[in-house]
Amino acid sequence: MSKMQKMSKMRLSKNLNDKLAKIQTLNFKSTQVNDEKIVKKISNNESFQSSMKNTLSVAYAVGLFPIKGIRENQAIALSYNKLSVPSFLSLFTILTLLWAAILSLVHTIRSLLKVNSGKSGGFANATAGGIFYSNAFVSSCIFRKLASTWPNIMIQWEKHEKDAYPYPKLRARTRAIAIIILILALTEHMLSIGINTPTCRANILLGNSTLRECLKEYCLRSHSFIFNAVQYNMALGLFIFYVSKVATFAWNFQDLFLILTCSGLVAKYRNINNKILKTDIAASNIKDWRFMRELYTNCSELARDFSSMLGPLVLLSFTNNLYFICLQMLNGLAPSLQGPLHNAYFFGSFGFMVGRLICVALAAAAVPIEARRSLPFLRCCPASTYCLEIQRLGFQLTHDEVGLTGMGFFTVNRNFMLGVAGAVATYEVVLLQFDMGQTPPPTLTE
Amino acid sequence: MSKMQKMSKMRLSKNLNDKLAKIQTLNFKSTQVNDEKIVKKISNNESFQSSMKNTLSVAYAVGLFPIKGIRENQAIALSYNKLSVPSFLSLFTILTLLWAAILSLVHTIRSLLKVNSGKSGGFANATAGGIFYSNAFVSSCIFRKLASTWPNIMIQWEKHEKDAYPYPKLRARTRAIAIIILILALTEHMLSIGINTPTCRANILLGNSTLRECLKEYCLRSHSFIFNAVQYNMALGLFIFYVSKVATFAWNFQDLFLILTCSGLVAKYRNINNKILKTDIAASNIKDWRFMRELYTNCSELARDFSSMLGPLVLLSFTNNLYFICLQMLNGLAPSLQGPLHNAYFFGSFGFMVGRLICVALAAAAVPIEARRSLPFLRCCPASTYCLEIQRLGFQLTHDEVGLTGMGFFTVNRNFMLGVAGAVATYEVVLLQFDMGQTPPPTLTE
Amino acid sequence: MSKMQKMSKMRLSKNLNDKLAKIQTLNFKSTQVNDEKIVKKISNNESFQSSMKNTLSVAYAVGLFPIKGIRENQAIALSYNKLSVPSFLSLFTILTLLWAAILSLVHTIRSLLKVNSGKSGGFANATAGGIFYSNAFVSSCIFRKLASTWPNIMIQWEKHEKDAYPYPKLRARTRAIAIIILILALTEHMLSIGINTPTCRANILLGNSTLRECLKEYCLRSHSFIFNAVQYNMALGLFIFYVSKVATFAWNFQDLFLILTCSGLVAKYRNINNKILKTDIAASNIKDWRFMRELYTNCSELARDFSSMLGPLVLLSFTNNLYFICLQMLNGLAPSLQGPLHNAYFFGSFGFMVGRLICVALAAAAVPIEARRSLPFLRCCPASTYCLEIQRLGFQLTHDEVGLTGMGFFTVNRNFMLGVAGAVATYEVVLLQFDMGQTPPPTLTE
Amino acid sequence: MSKMQKMSKMRLSKNLNDKLAKIQTLNFKSTQVNDEKIVKKISNNESFQSSMKNTLSVAYAVGLFPIKGIRENQAIALSYNKLSVPSFLSLFTILTLLWAAILSLVHTIRSLLKVNSGKSGGFANATAGGIFYSNAFVSSCIFRKLASTWPNIMIQWEKHEKDAYPYPKLRARTRAIAIIILILALTEHMLSIGINTPTCRANILLGNSTLRECLKEYCLRSHSFIFNAVQYNMALGLFIFYVSKVATFAWNFQDLFLILTCSGLVAKYRNINNKILKTDIAASNIKDWRFMRELYTNCSELARDFSSMLGPLVLLSFTNNLYFICLQMLNGLAPSLQGPLHNAYFFGSFGFMVGRLICVALAAAAVPIEARRSLPFLRCCPASTYCLEIQRLGFQLTHDEVGLTGMGFFTVNRNFMLGVAGAVATYEVVLLQFDMGQTPPPTLTE
Repeated sequence: MSKMQKMSKMRLSKNLNDKLAKIQTLNFKSTQVNDEKIVKKISNNESFQSSMKNTLSVAYAVGLFPIKGIRENQAIALSYNKLSVPSFLSLFTILTLLWAAILSLVHTIRSLLKVNSGKSGGFANATAGGIFYSNAFVSSCIFRKLASTWPNIMIQWEKHEKDAYPYPKLRARTRAIAIIILILALTEHMLSIGINTPTCRANILLGNSTLRECLKEYCLRSHSFIFNAVQYNMALGLFIFYVSKVATFAWNFQDLFLILTCSGLVAKYRNINNKILKTDIAASNIKDWRFMRELYTNCSELARDFSSMLGPLVLLSFTNNLYFICLQMLNGLAPSLQGPLHNAYFFGSFGFMVGRLICVALAAAAVPIEARRSLPFLRCCPASTYCLEIQRLGFQLTHDEVGLTGMGFFTVNRNFMLGVAGAVATYEVVLLQFDMGQTPPPTLTE
Repeated sequence: MSKMQKMSKMRLSKNLNDKLAKIQTLNFKSTQVNDEKIVKKISNNESFQSSMKNTLSVAYAVGLFPIKGIRENQAIALSYNKLSVPSFLSLFTILTLLWAAILSLVHTIRSLLKVNSGKSGGFANATAGGIFYSNAFVSSCIFRKLASTWPNIMIQWEKHEKDAYPYPKLRARTRAIAIIILILALTEHMLSIGINTPTCRANILLGNSTLRECLKEYCLRSHSFIFNAVQYNMALGLFIFYVSKVATFAWNFQDLFLILTCSGLVAKYRNINNKILKTDIAASNIKDWRFMRELYTNCSELARDFSSMLGPLVLLSFTNNLYFICLQMLNGLAPSLQGPLHNAYFFGSFGFMVGRLICVALAAAAVPIEARRSLPFLRCCPASTYCLEIQRLGFQLTHDEVGLTGMGFFTVNRNFMLGVAGAVATYEVVLLQFDMGQTPPPTLTE
Repeated sequence: MSKMQKMSKMRLSKNLNDKLAKIQTLNFKSTQVNDEKIVKKISNNESFQSSMKNTLSVAYAVGLFPIKGIRENQAIALSYNKLSVPSFLSLFTILTLLWAAILSLVHTIRSLLKVNSGKSGGFANATAGGIFYSNAFVSSCIFRKLASTWPNIMIQWEKHEKDAYPYPKLRARTRAIAIIILILALTEHMLSIGINTPTCRANILLGNSTLRECLKEYCLRSHSFIFNAVQYNMALGLFIFYVSKVATFAWNFQDLFLILTCSGLVAKYRNINNKILKTDIAASNIKDWRFMRELYTNCSELARDFSSMLGPLVLLSFTNNLYFICLQMLNGLAPSLQGPLHNAYFFGSFGFMVGRLICVALAAAAVPIEARRSLPFLRCCPASTYCLEIQRLGFQLTHDEVGLTGMGFFTVNRNFMLGVAGAVATYEVVLLQFDMGQTPPPTLTE
Repeated sequence: MSKMQKMSKMRLSKNLNDKLAKIQTLNFKSTQVNDEKIVKKISNNESFQSSMKNTLSVAYAVGLFPIKGIRENQAIALSYNKLSVPSFLSLFTILTLLWAAILSLVHTIRSLLKVNSGKSGGFANATAGGIFYSNAFVSSCIFRKLASTWPNIMIQWEKHEKDAYPYPKLRARTRAIAIIILILALTEHMLSIGINTPTCRANILLGNSTLRECLKEYCLRSHSFIFNAVQYNMALGLFIFYVSKVATFAWNFQDLFLILTCSGLVAKYRNINNKILKTDIAASNIKDWRFMRELYTNCSELARDFSSMLGPLVLLSFTNNLYFICLQMLNGLAPSLQGPLHNAYFFGSFGFMVGRLICVALAAAAVPIEARRSLPFLRCCPASTYCLEIQRLGFQLTHDEVGLTGMGFFTVNRNFMLGVAGAVATYEVVLLQFDMGQTPPPTLTE
């Protein structure tokens, strides 16, 4: 049912966009000056697509974002083709992740059925792999879907960019965010590899350990559930190594993508707000305001399209992050006597995941805040220049529900973050009590 | 108090409807063309009543929906009569269910008073029967009430259908939903019967078991509370079998009815929204918008009538589903060593109930989403064709609280679903702790 | 701080009322016909004051509602005088309840300090008396305060009653509610007395027990905390008997008063809504709507005054009811082996309190529902008669926050009731776990 | 990310203010009469800055509020200079608190790692110092930031004060609040010192104890974590004594500052509301309402600036108070056998902190209540004088979200207070269960 609904929604929002395009052609024809050259030159450097291209290229290479012309600066050069090489690469990635997800889910179900037999920490160990690979699989499907709508939405994005001329400076900021997050993710994953190869680590310092052995140790320790069914061999080991890297990248990329997209939207809104706030309100006329209202309406339209497009990703990202944060907290609170590297990994990984979630939430929560920023300014409009357009803009700013939602189940804003924090705290305490109830205190057995 | 209020509300909403009818006669006279023949022909196939008739016929046969002319395609042919045959059948069903409800509630109270005496799982066993038959009884009363208002509301539904000409295609969709849910319900109930006749099952394969014995075993196992007071005999067995089938049907039909009605409302809204979104907004005039505003207002009126009519059913359905989901989770989490059929039943039944609840919630939550869908389009209206009618429609779309509510206690939307999921998780954990606290771990006694 | 605020608020709302009065004199002069005789005659039977007078008379007699002319039918005949006899009676009641509250609170504090010493059920036993008498004391203070504003607000109430001519029929309804609640309260209290005089009960059947002995037994059992300090004597016994009756009356009267007042407000709104809904909307003009908007505004003003006046009472009533419901549930869930009278009392008292709370909540929640009822009708207004007045009325109906609040801490509506029910369930489970944790299972000591 | 956002926000709200100033110069020129002398004279006594100066002077002396001309009555005389003496004093305070915060956090982390080794009450003891000094450090940084914007915002505050002529009487009220809170804080801190010097207290009565010894005892008992690393000496003792006094002052001053600022805002709104409510609404014209709308808009602008400026302080204050209230409740509920001074301290300190939090919350919650107070009055405007300005003012009053927020994570209003109370109760019960689970009952070991 939900799918059917979504489909009809997408179909209609397409109609709507076509219509919008028509309207805007009618309205803006007069304002289109021959500044296309300048625009093109600048957009090469500061357009949203251009600022995203490096990050998206990485995803493209991994097989998550199958778009032709991903390294172009302009939306018009992008295209999605089901029968192209990147599309087949993406299909291969999806199938690989599906295979890993099925194997790990089988392990999860088997372990859960055995949970009552008494081993502590069973729940966490049983589900972690299944959730991790399922998340990667769903994520790769969502990104394939996203890629198919990306060229159109980027054209939409660039359409009215020249009306709000001084472009937001996105490049530097986007690059900084992407590099920081990817480096942190890499560090976290290196630590995770380090933990899963204790023997190898010890031997490598002594010089008597080969990469081959390290790989074997890593695979057997971290993906033991696969080798319950199959025998280990070098090729399988390499394949598993590759799959786990792809899944880890998807795990990080879904959050990074959300952060960058939200930053872009905020920059677009900020651009319009700056235009509005720079207006000499006492000398403005109805035409100025009509222009600005239309700018704002277009931007909101774009934000709404993004919101409905990113809905499944937001839901996936929050569910996944909350699961791993709860898991890591449980692991962290349980006594672990396995040396400083483990401690570093646990604290580092936990901090990284909490930080990543907070970044996603703050970035998404910034959209509605920025969208509403010029509302007080409109209220200060003197009676002499107050007009219907200001009234319409004011009404729209007051009532418009801009902002990312997890498919309508929740809207991401700061208040929601407080709620999530409270819920995590509550569940953590309950889970801890549960855990303490299950493990008998060691003093009683002595 | 609540009843008195409701009565006055219904009385007034009737007034309101009469008034509306009058107004619409005044307004629409000019737009009424002689297309009645075409309308009639199409409405025979695609009207809401025609798409519902098969499902309602089943309920009619069981005695839940006592309306004359239930298999007609047009609202005008329907009628409700207190002194007709279907009405007496419905009364008989209600009384039968009342009898079963009283017997099972007596059993519930007796069991609860004995709960402290120590048998585990007592709470679930004690209440399940009582809740099941009470739900069926209340459900049958609500449906009798619904049936009495059904002819009027169907006339209301069809009144403006020709104004929004290309009818929504409801038939195929409705039929598909009804068939899927009823087949799943049947399968679930078959499994439940299978579980309650273990001896019979074994013997049937060997060929030495009669239906008579099976019935006896089924009755004694699944309705033991009745035979605490009365001796078993064949007639009573058949009667109990009949009652339990009716109650099971009511248990499924209440959710199916909600899903189908909400789908109908969504289709009606979608129809109007498509009309609005197809408008050439730059060439439209105030008359077009007046027409569309009136279409929308009529549809909202209808939605509001449905909402107040379905209020008790929504409340009953959610309460009932949540109770059985919690119960099944508790049963599922407790260790059960009774073979694969039991496991299949527990997982299947649990999945079916969760899926059914999600379907009801999503169907109900789709109404307000669809009702507001054309709001962004209105915002794009250029200044040249902006008029009072668009302003009124925009204001109405912004502030109108369309959507099903559980008698005002909650409004069904996606955010509410998240809240319900959170509450179920919390209660489940608390109940589990409770359960673990009450049953002493078996290893300690050895 | 909160007090200062409240004071300034009341002062200003007085200004506002004066202003309103002035405005209304200006506006309504033309509509004032010489129908005063009819009005007076009818208002004698159906005015709000006349429908409340019997209930308020009882409170007057107990010393809770010190107003002169309480049995008059018209607001003009009421007056509040600090130096009158009823005022002194009320002061005496307040001081008596203060004395009982202090004694019981001293007992509460002493018991709480001893709680750790181990006796089970200590918390409930320790606090019940203190809460009961504190509630009665605060309640009596609030009612004295209410009485001082009652004459003015009744004048306000009657001022525009003749504009909305066919008066709501309040008398019969009010009387029925008052009688039912008071009889149930009496029954509940009788049971409570019966439980506290077991010996006497047994002896009275045998004929060898005097009232004097019964009184002594009742006082010593139910108010033991007083006789820790003082010796029992007949006069003190009678006095305690009197005080406990007054406190019980206050405990019930505060809820009854809220129910009746809300019913009155709902009736006033319903009256206006009926007037609006009876309008022939296609033939109405701007004057009709101005008149109705002013009627509605006056009524909302009154509702707002009532809301701020009843704020403390709502807060007190909800806190108090929730405390006693939790207490009774804890008592009821604990095993009690004291015969059928105890069971009847526990179940009856619990049901009575839950029912009373639900009645208060539903009555208060009905105000905003009724206030907004005519909103859909306004939306159906055709373009030909749509005017500024309808726009203003529509905006007001959409955004006006009518409804009782607990001093701003919560607004009473049906959604809030669901929240309260959820909170009670959660606390109950937690308290039960707590209780089970504290009392060692009896089987362990054997 | 959040920081970057905030910065841009502040930059833009500055632009906005400049713009506002320009607009207002255009609009108000005509209303500026030559009443500057009177204004100056009165503003010397009743301006907000003049009413705050004594309180701010104390903070200035401690090094928390580094502004030149802090004792002046007019905003124009204030200035913030990074290279002035107060700025260096403030830097010194910040560094001192940073030193104490680091030392105590090191102690916290060490203690937490040792918590599993079994000592009860460990969590509270481990974190209290760290939280206390971290709070003081963050608080001092926030106040330095606040001081840098204070002169500008005070100029903003005074700008339109003469338009709303009869100034609110703030001086007496502000002074009373400041004195009461500071005296209570002093008493609470004296008790805390008393508890930490038990030997000294005993000896002082006998006359054989020197201040030097008392200081040593106080430092060693209350700041033991510092002397794990360093040896005690007189100079360090004095220094620690000084630091702890500064931190305690900051701990109280942050709440006091919030209460006073909110009172100021409420007084400003009340002033405007009184002006509105005194208007003869039937004789008013559009100019009167334009004037009042502009007054209101300016005030809301100011409130919004304050809200974004105080955001971090609100968040810090609520987090900090909730932490210490939970801590004190846990301590209070645990059995303490250390004499009446300890009991007095525990109950007094707990009551003081709860009262302080309630005062902050009520003061902040009063802002939106007061801001919306004149809304009902506007609704009573008769049709004859209803105009666009009243419509704009009404729309603004209805939809404006005035009020303090904790950086957008929560809005402080009375409903939020109820939520906080519920959350504290829940966590307290959970923590208590936790605590009871960890400490074995002493009777079992005997």
